[in-house]
Amino acid sequence: MTPAETTARPRVEGDREQEILDTALEVLAEVGYDRLTMDAVATRAKASKATLYRRWTNKLTLVIDALVAQKAAPEPPDTGSLRGDLAAAYCGFGGLTDRHTVSRFTSVLTAISRDPEFAAAYRTQVLGPKVAQSIAIFERARDRGELRDDVDISLIAPALPGIVLHRFLMLGEPPSPDLIDRVIDQIILPAAVAAS
Amino acid sequence: MTPAETTARPRVEGDREQEILDTALEVLAEVGYDRLTMDAVATRAKASKATLYRRWTNKLTLVIDALVAQKAAPEPPDTGSLRGDLAAAYCGFGGLTDRHTVSRFTSVLTAISRDPEFAAAYRTQVLGPKVAQSIAIFERARDRGELRDDVDISLIAPALPGIVLHRFLMLGEPPSPDLIDRVIDQIILPAAVAAS
Repeated sequence: MTPAETTARPRVEGDREQEILDTALEVLAEVGYDRLTMDAVATRAKASKATLYRRWTNKLTLVIDALVAQKAAPEPPDTGSLRGDLAAAYCGFGGLTDRHTVSRFTSVLTAISRDPEFAAAYRTQVLGPKVAQSIAIFERARDRGELRDDVDISLIAPALPGIVLHRFLMLGEPPSPDLIDRVIDQIILPAAVAAS
Repeated sequence: MTPAETTARPRVEGDREQEILDTALEVLAEVGYDRLTMDAVATRAKASKATLYRRWTNKLTLVIDALVAQKAAPEPPDTGSLRGDLAAAYCGFGGLTDRHTVSRFTSVLTAISRDPEFAAAYRTQVLGPKVAQSIAIFERARDRGELRDDVDISLIAPALPGIVLHRFLMLGEPPSPDLIDRVIDQIILPAAVAAS
């Protein structure tokens, strides 16, 4: 390795980076974004503060990176139908049955409501890609000729996660593939699909 | 007034009770349920701790009472149609455009996820009546013959507030009568109403 390569090598790589990001999410779930500190994450992850600060400028960057890394599901497949595409994309929602995910989600919601900088970064970097993916599913359905002409994709696309998330947070009902299927069949498809 | 009447008179009446309840919601929005104390509410409301403790055993009772008092909208009218009934019931949602209501809502969600006792009391005493009211609207529609035979009311009834609340919390879009109308027309009615 040449001196140039040595200095250019990132100080936090692959698995170690993911460990630190996972730790950041643990701390986020436990104390909330407001009380999260880089120090606390460094200590929990058994990393030096210098290491963290070199890689992530501040806690906003660290936490947003951690949340972005979480969402990294592969592009959902083109199953040939809106119903199939939605089921394939959202079955991963089942991960929300984990108690830690509850706390983390609530910490995110609290941070969004109390910290405008976090809200902006979260909506752009974490939610943005998810929303785009959802819209793409409906646009693909439109291209197949499945949708009614008057469908407002921006209104219907967030409805499935909205309904499921609301039942989860407010009613305490964990998402399940069965619930997701029922919402797709009984609410989303009737709203979106052209009568055949 | 006889001695019996004097001792039987409640120590916190009408407007004063509502002032204290409003103060409890302010404190809830500011510091969250976990950090809310009866002392803090008493101080802010310029009431004595004794007064509060005599009327509300603990902070759970105080906060739940405050939230129950908030929801006290009159029975929504029977407008003669599902569409009209839903619009009449949910237009009050517009109250959520207030910044304090955002913080309070988030404090409630945080408390639900972190405090099982609060969650149980909230779901029974605050959410329960709201859910019942929503279900009653759909059952009335069923009685009018408006609904498709296969409608699962328990699935469709929370969908409208779920979609609107999700857009509000996650996308930062304040509820508006226009949004509520669009969700009713484009999502709820297609899912629920029998083809004519």
